[in-house]
Formats: sequence, structure tokens, C-alpha cells
Amino acid sequence: MPELRKDPIIGRWVIISTDRGRRPADFIVPKPETRGGFCPFCPGNEDKTPPEILAYTNDRINNKESDSNGDWHIRVIPNKFPALRVEGELERVGDGVYDMISGIGAHEIIIDSPNHDDTLATISTKQFEEMLWAYISRLKDLRRDTRLRYVLIFKNHGEAAGASLEHTHSQLIALPIIPKRVAEELDGSLSYYKYKERCIFCDIIRQELMQKSRVVSENKHFLAVTPYAPKSPFEMWLLPKEHCSNFEDTTDKHMSSLAEIFSEVLKRMDKVLGNPPYNYILHSAPFHKDMHRLAHYHWHFEIMPKLTKTAGFEWGSGFYINPTPPEEAAEFLRKAKI
Amino acid sequence: MPELRKDPIIGRWVIISTDRGRRPADFIVPKPETRGGFCPFCPGNEDKTPPEILAYTNDRINNKESDSNGDWHIRVIPNKFPALRVEGELERVGDGVYDMISGIGAHEIIIDSPNHDDTLATISTKQFEEMLWAYISRLKDLRRDTRLRYVLIFKNHGEAAGASLEHTHSQLIALPIIPKRVAEELDGSLSYYKYKERCIFCDIIRQELMQKSRVVSENKHFLAVTPYAPKSPFEMWLLPKEHCSNFEDTTDKHMSSLAEIFSEVLKRMDKVLGNPPYNYILHSAPFHKDMHRLAHYHWHFEIMPKLTKTAGFEWGSGFYINPTPPEEAAEFLRKAKI
Repeated sequence: MPELRKDPIIGRWVIISTDRGRRPADFIVPKPETRGGFCPFCPGNEDKTPPEILAYTNDRINNKESDSNGDWHIRVIPNKFPALRVEGELERVGDGVYDMISGIGAHEIIIDSPNHDDTLATISTKQFEEMLWAYISRLKDLRRDTRLRYVLIFKNHGEAAGASLEHTHSQLIALPIIPKRVAEELDGSLSYYKYKERCIFCDIIRQELMQKSRVVSENKHFLAVTPYAPKSPFEMWLLPKEHCSNFEDTTDKHMSSLAEIFSEVLKRMDKVLGNPPYNYILHSAPFHKDMHRLAHYHWHFEIMPKLTKTAGFEWGSGFYINPTPPEEAAEFLRKAKI
Repeated sequence: MPELRKDPIIGRWVIISTDRGRRPADFIVPKPETRGGFCPFCPGNEDKTPPEILAYTNDRINNKESDSNGDWHIRVIPNKFPALRVEGELERVGDGVYDMISGIGAHEIIIDSPNHDDTLATISTKQFEEMLWAYISRLKDLRRDTRLRYVLIFKNHGEAAGASLEHTHSQLIALPIIPKRVAEELDGSLSYYKYKERCIFCDIIRQELMQKSRVVSENKHFLAVTPYAPKSPFEMWLLPKEHCSNFEDTTDKHMSSLAEIFSEVLKRMDKVLGNPPYNYILHSAPFHKDMHRLAHYHWHFEIMPKLTKTAGFEWGSGFYINPTPPEEAAEFLRKAKI
């Protein structure tokens, strides 16, 4: 079973894959499946993946009963090589100064489209919306497992951004602890709330809409901006204008608005940067069993094209060096003809 | 002038290079200078770099007076494209919810060897020791500048690890604030000290020497281990066995011992992983004007071969997935015939 181990000094957790330890010779990076090669995510190859968890099909939502045999828009499957596993007891073990939790969790793949050559910038907004609904469906289902504390949804697009299969897909990893990065956002926004009695994200939205210089796009319900202190050039954040801590509370009306702006900003990024590799992640409030919502936290997507390398300085300092001011990046993105 | 900007939610700082903003087309990654091409770090090309700050030559230490014209072992120069600059006032500016400091600092290159084809695994331990003395010399000099709070010394070896020139070199960046990663180590080790009245690093050293499974090598004064919760496969830490918070306090006797084990573990890493790209960083206590030393902090080097990609999950969670348990990595490294 994998282990979650905690760094005793700074408290950062890592996942150690004890049962499939990679030996030195295994670190030759596999190329992503090329066009023309066999793709386990393409319709017709459903039996080459683990049994599906969820599929949106033409005539019905297929939920765990049987595989959907080629006739689907969106398909969710377990990762064949999961970082964490659902089976087992959640055990906490100490070893001198060190702490460990058994690697309970889930690792799933959301196949965003049946078409191998699609990207999120080319699919219809309807298809984009279905993908977002699939995210919500999986969030709601996984969060019923009381061992789990957080579900991180993310996408790696392109080999340089960590994708090992070419066919467009998102991933989720469900964790038995709240990850450090999310805890930092929760803590930081809570401090601000205690001081100001306002959500810091709502204040950021107000300031960005006033200053305009970092706005990439907006519609009725959403705002896309380059953040004031981006880790990487052309990073974008996508936020609901109205305060909302939990992504899974998004309504029908808002979801189509989100799909539209999300699709639009990815098109802008592709246009300006020539189809770069990228990652995005969803940050939403952790699940609480009493279902109360947080006044200080505000869900959002962070989109980061992979343009620079993380090297010794970033790793040693936690600082990032960004060669493009976000105001310039926003201007390029805003002016792109799409 | 570059800007240091703070993320208002989690407090992470970034350096924004406002005066040399890279436009979208600039993100084509330059290849490192190849063998045979012109190299500004090779002896004889001293006039192609900014004027040197320090050089260790055959007959004298050349300190800022004149360039050393080819006759040097170690040479320190300002980075031609610095992330931060020494000139200017340290100003703090607010803009609504956002905070900024003017980008005061220093960015220097330590040329580790005059020979273009050397690596730190092939140079003599004497040469290695001279490089480490140059680190100390620069630390001591820069820390006299009261605007600066921290000096991070690091190395990027190989293109994948962020090196843009092939000729072996280290770098340092001096900062007007204590970087997040270092602050986290200081805070974490202080909490432990308050609770236990012991240095957590000293406790780690005791436990590792007892358990042996993560020990890569040791000599009289130093220990090399794979950490319990490594961010990346085959990561190693190098620590003085005796408590010491500040690298610049290292004595002559200890320095030769450090050069020996440092050289040895890099040879082991090259042997096991086939000369991988790697980064290392020095973590030492921030400078205090009263020169007091910290009972809770312990300087160390962290060495990280670049074998995996940081993707959406790591970025969104602050979690790392490590496919090789550190106990297995240590065994491979320990058994390598060098």
C-alpha cells in the first residue's frame, strides 16, 4: 500500500509508492501515445481500462452498472496506476520523529471527450459543460467517504505539463488530509476575514474589475484575471463573481457561463502562446459533514501554461521568478483575436 | 526595476522582471551552449562577462581590483541578466489588497572550475573545497548589506534542471526578505524546539544513524541521507553531525570533510542514475545583526536529481508523488561502486 509521509520540519506531505518502487533505470520518461498508436481512452477500447465509474451517454447517465460501449460523451475511470487506493484502513503510524498515514484515497481519470484529437480549446462549450458536471458528480460522490478530506481536480495538458497519454483527460486525487497548498489558502483567507470581515477573493475581484489591467475576460457570472503575483508567466485565475466557497454548489445557469469563459480563455492562451502545454487545478473548500459553507473562502480555477522550468532557486526558496508582468500577459490575452 | 510581489492569500512572494518583460514569442527555450561553441565562463573570455567580484587565483585572492585574466580556479561574477539588482532604494508599496517591495538584491554566478567539461563529480575535492569557500566569502560579504535578509546559494546542473549555460557554475540570489521555504523550516524547527528543547535536525541525524536504512554515506563530520519524506526520487540531504545553524561558521577541518562527502555522493548519484540533471540548494540560518546563532536550526544542503515532472497535482496541492521509497534509493546509492 502507498504511504503518505510527512516532512517533520515543514509538515509537507508526500505520497510514497512503496508497492511499485521505480528503480533507477525506470526513470526514462515515456513519450505520450502518439496519433495513430493504440489509445485506451478512445471509444471502442472501453475493455482496455478499469471498469468505468461514470459515463454520460446519449440516452442515459451510466452509473457503475455496465461499461458504456463506445456511446459516451464523458467517461470516468479509475487510474490504472493509482497514486492512492480506496481499499484499506486509514492508519496513522509514528516512527521516532516521523509520521505516516496509510495511502488511502482515490485516483480517477475523467476522459473529457470521446475524440482523440480534441483539446479543451476545440470542444464545444456544451461538451465543456458536461465535463464540469462530471467533476461535480465525482466530488459529491467521493465526499460521502468519511475517510477523505479533500478532492483535488486537475488537468495536465501536453507532455511537458506531465500528461502521459495524449487523449484529452482530467484527473482527480482524493486525499485523507487537506493538502498544504489548500490549507495555506484557507488559513490566509481566514486571517483576512477575521481582520476585515470580508472575503479576500471578493476584494480581489472588486479591485481587478476597477483596475482592469489584469482582466483577461469577464461575463455575467465569472471573471478571468492574471493574478497580481503569478508563479508563472501567463497564469490565469477563473473566479465566480458572486461569493461561493464550494464548486459543487454551481447552478445550471452559472455552469454554462463558466463553460463559456473557460473555453474562451483557453482559446486565447492557445492563440497567444501557440498551443502551450498547461496545467489547471480546481481549488474548492474542503467538505464538511455539516455542509456549512465558508464566508472566507472562494472557489476558483488556476490555469498555468508550462513555459518556464522550476529550478534550484524556486525549489530552495519557494519564490518564483516571473519574466512577464501579469499586466502585459493580460493585455496579450485580452487582445488575442479568437 | 524588478518588483517583489506578494500573493495576498498565501503570502508567497514572486519576482516580476518588469524591465525585461518576456513577450509570448520569447518563450522558446534556448539550448545550453554546446561544446565547441563560445563560452563566456571559460578562461580567456573574462572580458565577455560583467567585471568579476571575486577570484581565487594561483598566487593571490583577487578581490574586485582587476579581472584575473585566465589565471583562476574559482571566479565569481554578477549575473548578466539578474533577477534582482543591488542599486536603488528598498521601498514598500501597497496597492489595495496587494503588497510590493522594490526588487533590491543581488544575483551572482560562481564559476566552479576553469575547465569547461568539468562537473562537480569530476573535479578534485580540493577544487570542490575552494568552491565552498567562495560560497562563504560571498555570504559574509553580502550579509553586510543591511537591506538584505537572506542569501540563497543553489546550483542548476543540466538543461532539464534549469541550467542555461553548460560550463559548471553555481548561483546565489540575495533577497530583502526571508523566503517562504526557509521561513517554514525556521518556524517548524522552532515549534519543535519549544516543545522538546532539542534541534529537530539533530534528532533526525540521531534517528538516521540508528536506523541506517536511509543513510547514503557518512564521515567524521557529515551525514548524507535520503530524507524520510522526499519531494523527488533519490533526493539527498547533507548535514553536519554537530549542531550548527550557519554554514559560514564551517571551519577548515570540517570543510575538507564536507568537500569529500559532497563529491562522493554526487559521484554515487551519477553512477546510479547515469549523470542526471540535478539541483542543489544551501539552507542556512538568516543573518542576524547581533550574530547570534540559532539553537533550533541546522544548516544543510538538499540535492535533488531532476527525474520527475511537477504537474497539476503537485502544483495544486503542495503534495509530491514519489515513485521510489527513500530506503530503496539509499540502498542503490550506498551500494554504487564509485
